[in-house]
Amino acid sequence: MPTTKKIFALVARVYAPNIIQSLDKVANFLKDAGHEVVYEAQTGANVPFQDIRTMKLEEIGAKAAAAIVLGGDGTMLGIARQLAPYSVPLIGINHGHLGFITDIPLNRMLLVLDKMIKGRYVSEQRFLVEGTITREGEVISKAVAFNEVVISRGAGAGMIDLRVHVDGHFMYQQHSDGMIISTPTGSTAYSLSAGGPMLHPNLGGIVLVSIAPHTLSNRPIVIPDTSEIVVDVVNARQPSISFDSQSFANLQSGDQVTVRRAPHVVTFLHPVGWSYYDTLRNKLHWNEVSRKLD
Amino acid sequence: MPTTKKIFALVARVYAPNIIQSLDKVANFLKDAGHEVVYEAQTGANVPFQDIRTMKLEEIGAKAAAAIVLGGDGTMLGIARQLAPYSVPLIGINHGHLGFITDIPLNRMLLVLDKMIKGRYVSEQRFLVEGTITREGEVISKAVAFNEVVISRGAGAGMIDLRVHVDGHFMYQQHSDGMIISTPTGSTAYSLSAGGPMLHPNLGGIVLVSIAPHTLSNRPIVIPDTSEIVVDVVNARQPSISFDSQSFANLQSGDQVTVRRAPHVVTFLHPVGWSYYDTLRNKLHWNEVSRKLD
Amino acid sequence: MPTTKKIFALVARVYAPNIIQSLDKVANFLKDAGHEVVYEAQTGANVPFQDIRTMKLEEIGAKAAAAIVLGGDGTMLGIARQLAPYSVPLIGINHGHLGFITDIPLNRMLLVLDKMIKGRYVSEQRFLVEGTITREGEVISKAVAFNEVVISRGAGAGMIDLRVHVDGHFMYQQHSDGMIISTPTGSTAYSLSAGGPMLHPNLGGIVLVSIAPHTLSNRPIVIPDTSEIVVDVVNARQPSISFDSQSFANLQSGDQVTVRRAPHVVTFLHPVGWSYYDTLRNKLHWNEVSRKLD
Amino acid sequence: MPTTKKIFALVARVYAPNIIQSLDKVANFLKDAGHEVVYEAQTGANVPFQDIRTMKLEEIGAKAAAAIVLGGDGTMLGIARQLAPYSVPLIGINHGHLGFITDIPLNRMLLVLDKMIKGRYVSEQRFLVEGTITREGEVISKAVAFNEVVISRGAGAGMIDLRVHVDGHFMYQQHSDGMIISTPTGSTAYSLSAGGPMLHPNLGGIVLVSIAPHTLSNRPIVIPDTSEIVVDVVNARQPSISFDSQSFANLQSGDQVTVRRAPHVVTFLHPVGWSYYDTLRNKLHWNEVSRKLD
Repeated sequence: MPTTKKIFALVARVYAPNIIQSLDKVANFLKDAGHEVVYEAQTGANVPFQDIRTMKLEEIGAKAAAAIVLGGDGTMLGIARQLAPYSVPLIGINHGHLGFITDIPLNRMLLVLDKMIKGRYVSEQRFLVEGTITREGEVISKAVAFNEVVISRGAGAGMIDLRVHVDGHFMYQQHSDGMIISTPTGSTAYSLSAGGPMLHPNLGGIVLVSIAPHTLSNRPIVIPDTSEIVVDVVNARQPSISFDSQSFANLQSGDQVTVRRAPHVVTFLHPVGWSYYDTLRNKLHWNEVSRKLD
Repeated sequence: MPTTKKIFALVARVYAPNIIQSLDKVANFLKDAGHEVVYEAQTGANVPFQDIRTMKLEEIGAKAAAAIVLGGDGTMLGIARQLAPYSVPLIGINHGHLGFITDIPLNRMLLVLDKMIKGRYVSEQRFLVEGTITREGEVISKAVAFNEVVISRGAGAGMIDLRVHVDGHFMYQQHSDGMIISTPTGSTAYSLSAGGPMLHPNLGGIVLVSIAPHTLSNRPIVIPDTSEIVVDVVNARQPSISFDSQSFANLQSGDQVTVRRAPHVVTFLHPVGWSYYDTLRNKLHWNEVSRKLD
Repeated sequence: MPTTKKIFALVARVYAPNIIQSLDKVANFLKDAGHEVVYEAQTGANVPFQDIRTMKLEEIGAKAAAAIVLGGDGTMLGIARQLAPYSVPLIGINHGHLGFITDIPLNRMLLVLDKMIKGRYVSEQRFLVEGTITREGEVISKAVAFNEVVISRGAGAGMIDLRVHVDGHFMYQQHSDGMIISTPTGSTAYSLSAGGPMLHPNLGGIVLVSIAPHTLSNRPIVIPDTSEIVVDVVNARQPSISFDSQSFANLQSGDQVTVRRAPHVVTFLHPVGWSYYDTLRNKLHWNEVSRKLD
Repeated sequence: MPTTKKIFALVARVYAPNIIQSLDKVANFLKDAGHEVVYEAQTGANVPFQDIRTMKLEEIGAKAAAAIVLGGDGTMLGIARQLAPYSVPLIGINHGHLGFITDIPLNRMLLVLDKMIKGRYVSEQRFLVEGTITREGEVISKAVAFNEVVISRGAGAGMIDLRVHVDGHFMYQQHSDGMIISTPTGSTAYSLSAGGPMLHPNLGGIVLVSIAPHTLSNRPIVIPDTSEIVVDVVNARQPSISFDSQSFANLQSGDQVTVRRAPHVVTFLHPVGWSYYDTLRNKLHWNEVSRKLD
C-alpha cells in the first residue's frame, strides 16, 4: 500500500449496535487521508443516509487495496470465504470482544489504521479447504470452508459411521457424533472444543478431530495440507455437513465427501508487532493465575 | 432363589442370528432343572414353533424369580428400563462380544446359570435417572434412562445454550453440542466417549459431561445422586432430548428439563467371582501392551 | 456457636505481606464481640508485639469454637490435615485470590464473620484419605491427605509401572508418569490438571487419575469412598509418594501403598448463601465469553 | 540400491532372546544374495562365534547401502539418532510386537527384505530436533532427539514454571509437570499419552504438549518445524531434561533450553504398500469394536 490514493472497501454486519458510527469514523478517517472508501454491496445496502458508493465482491477483488472488516470473527469468516478467489487482503477490526482473526480493538482502530495504510503492517496467509459431496458417482455440491468442514450425525438417535481414507490409504472407520476437518484458522474454534490441538497459521497442516468417538484411542491427527481426505458416510439416520457452521447440507448414507486444500489463500494484514501467540494468550486466558495454591 | 420351582422369564431381540437356538438351550436347561420358563411377551411373539407361554412385563415383575436377557447391552438397557418398576432381578447373557452389563459369555452360559439358579450369585443394584420436560410451566413428557439423558443441539447450524442449576444453585451457562447426564451404568457408554470419567456402579453419583463445550475449563463434574439437575434450554435451533439413545423428543428454546434419580433400582445378578474391574479391563483393552518401546 | 463467650483460634502463614494487620483486625473484631482469641502456636510464634496467647493444636481441638484461617488454599490444606483428628470447624479467609476452600474475601471478612459468629453459617464436611506404605511386609510410613496422594515416577528416565487392586479386585497394571488418588476436595487441584473430573464435596467418591498413561483407554475412574485401594510399585527407577504436594517420601520397587478414607472428617463453615458452584464458576472462569463467534 | 554387491549393516540389542538366530538368518540371506554383511560395532561385540566383520557408525555411514535394525522402536530410536549425521537409510525389523518405526514383522522378514534389496521399497524422511542448554549465557550441553525433548519438574514437591518463547514471541508461562516438544515421529509416543495429537510423518510440524498443566485452557499446539522454541526454567526444585527418554541431564532454575529442527534427517525404507495409517490402526487398536451397544 504505497502512499498514492487507494480504494478501501468497508464490510460489516450493520445490525450490530453502534456499528454505523464506527463505519462512519473509519470512512471519514480514510477519506481525510486521501483515499477512496466504498462499501461492500450488502453492507452498503444497510447503511442509511450515506454518500459512499458500493462495490460488489468482484469489483472489490479487482480494485481495492484492502477490505476492512468491522465485526467479529464470524463476520470475517464469511467475507474471507467470499473474497478468497480474489487476492485482496483483509484487515479485521473487532467490534465486540477481541477475536482470533479480527485483532484490532475498536478503541485503537484509527491509530492502528493510520500506520497500516502507510505500509506499516505484516501480512499473513491462511488457506481454506474445499469440500465436494458425491452421491452415486455424481458431484452434487461443493463448498469452501475457512475454519472447518464438519460431517455429523445430525438429529435423532444414534451415532454416525464414517469410513476415512487419506491419499488413497484407509485410515479408519469411526463410530462417533461426527468428524471435524479443520484448517489452522479453525483449530481454535470448534475443533478445539472437541479436543483438537491448536495449529499455528503458518503450519501446512489439516487436523482431523472425531467428536465423541466410540473408540477411546481415536485421537486428533494432523496431516499435511496436501492430503486428500475422503470420507464415506457408511451409516447414519440424518447425516449432515456444514462449512464454517455457516452453510449446511443434508447427506445420505452412501454419500462421499472429499476434502482438500482450496486453490486460493486469504491474506490478512496485521499491525506491526502483532503476534499470534499474544492472541492465543488473551483469548484463552493463559495469563490467569487461578487454581494455584498459595 | 431357593431350590423350589421358580419362574424364569427369557428376553431377547430374536432377530439376532442364532438367538432362537440359544433361547431354546436356556429354556430346556431351566425346564430340566425343574423350573418354569416363560417368554417375555414381545420376545415370545417372535419365537416360532414353541410351546412356552408368554408373560407381560407386569406379570414377570410379579411372578418371576429373575429375567434372563440374551443379547447385548442395548437389549439389556431396554428391558431393564421397563422392568425397573418391579423388583425382578436381571441376568445378562451376551450373545455377541462381551458387554458391560451382559457379562455371561454365551459359550459358558449353562455352566454359569446352573450355579446361579442354585443361589450362587452376587447381586448388585443400579439406579436410573428420570427426566421431566416442562414447557411453559406444564410437564409435557417424562421418561427414564438407565445410561444417560442427553440434551443436544440436534441438526442444523450452531451450538446449544444451556443454563444449568443443581439443587437450586446456578452452576453454569454452557455453549456446546449438548450435555450428557449419566448414571454410573452409563458412564462407560456415550459419556466416556465425550470425555467423562468412569463411575463405579456402587458410587452414589451422577456425572454431567458437556459435549464439545466452548469454554475449555468446562470439565466433567460428578455430583451426588440425590441432586436435582435443572437444565434450561436457553437457545438452539432444533434442540432434542434422548434417553439411553433409545427414545427421543424434540425440545424448544425455553423448555426446562429436570433430571433426578428415579425411585426404582434395577438388580443385576452376577456369577460369584464377577468383578466390575475385570469387565472394564476386558472391554477397554487395558491388557494391551502396544505403544511401549522395547 | 451460641451467643456466649467462645474461643476462636487464628491461623496464618505470617510471612505473607500484610497478614499481621489482617490478623489484628480479626482478633480485635472478635474480642470486641466478647470472645476470646488465641493464636495457633506456630502462627503466634511469628506475630510480633502481641498480647494474645497461643494454643497448641490439641488444645485448639479441645477448646476452640472454630479455627479461622487466613491465607490461601495451601495454608488451609496444611492446617485442616493437622486439625482433622479434632472436631473443631474451620473458617477460611482468603488473603490472595479467592480459593476453593478459603472462600471469604479479605475485604468482606468482618462483615461475614459478624454473621457467622452469631450462628448464621452453613457447615460442610470433607473427608481425607490415609496412605500407608508397606515394605517387605512392614508398615514403614503412614500419612493423611486432604487433596490427594500421588505415586509417581520421580526423576530420571522412564515411566512407572503400578499394579492396582481395589477391594481385593485387580483393576489394572499401568505404565504412566504416576497415579493420583484424590478426594473430592482435591478434585479441583492436581487431579483436574491431569484430566480428572470435578467431584462435588458431598459425593462419597475417590477418583483415580493416571498421569500420562501409556494405555489410551486408561481414563479417570471414580470409586466409592469406602474402597480400599492397593497400589503395588512394580517397577520404577526413583519412585516417590506425596501427600497434598506438601509431604514426600521415596518409594522402592516392591513397595505397596494402601489408600483408604481416613477416620476423621474436617468441617468447614461457610457464610449463608455460599455455593460450591459459585466457587467453581469463579475459579474456572466459566463466565468468560471468549472464543464465541459474533 | 541397484543390483550390484552392496554392504548392509546389521544392528540389534543382542540381549533380546533369540535375536542372535534372527541376525544369523538375515546375514546368511544377504550373503546368499551376493551382498556383504557387517555388524555395527557394538552389536558385533556381543554376537558370539561369528565371522562377520564389524563397522563403526562413521564407516557404516560412509559405506553401507542401508542399516537393518532388529529390535523394537527403542532400539531404532537409539541408532537412528546416532546415524542421523550420515545419510544411510534404515530398515526396521520388529523383534517383538509391531512397532511404529520397526514395521517389518519378524516372520516375514526375509520375504520382505528380498524385495527391498532389489529396489522395491518406498523411502520416507523423518526429522529430528536438537536441544541446546544454556546456563548463565554459556552453552553447557547439546543433544538430539528423534521423538521428543522433555523438560520436567523432576522429583520432589511442586510443579515447574516454564516460560516459553517461539521465534522471539512470548507464548506463555506455564505451571505444570513439564513440557514435551515432540517431532511427528514422537507424536505417537509420550506426547500422545500426555494428550497430544498424532502428527503425520510428512507434516512439517513440532508439537508442544504440557504435562498436567495448571491452566485448563493450555492445550497442545502444533507449530512449523522451522520454529525456534526457547524455554526458560523459571522455577522448579529439581528440573531435568530428557531426550527420547534415553539421555538425561539435570537443569537449574535460570537455565534456558533452545529447541529447533536438527540439520539432518533420517531416511526409513519401507516395503512397497506400507501405509502409515495401517500402522496407526494396528498399534492403536482402531479396529476394535468394543463398547458399541448391540
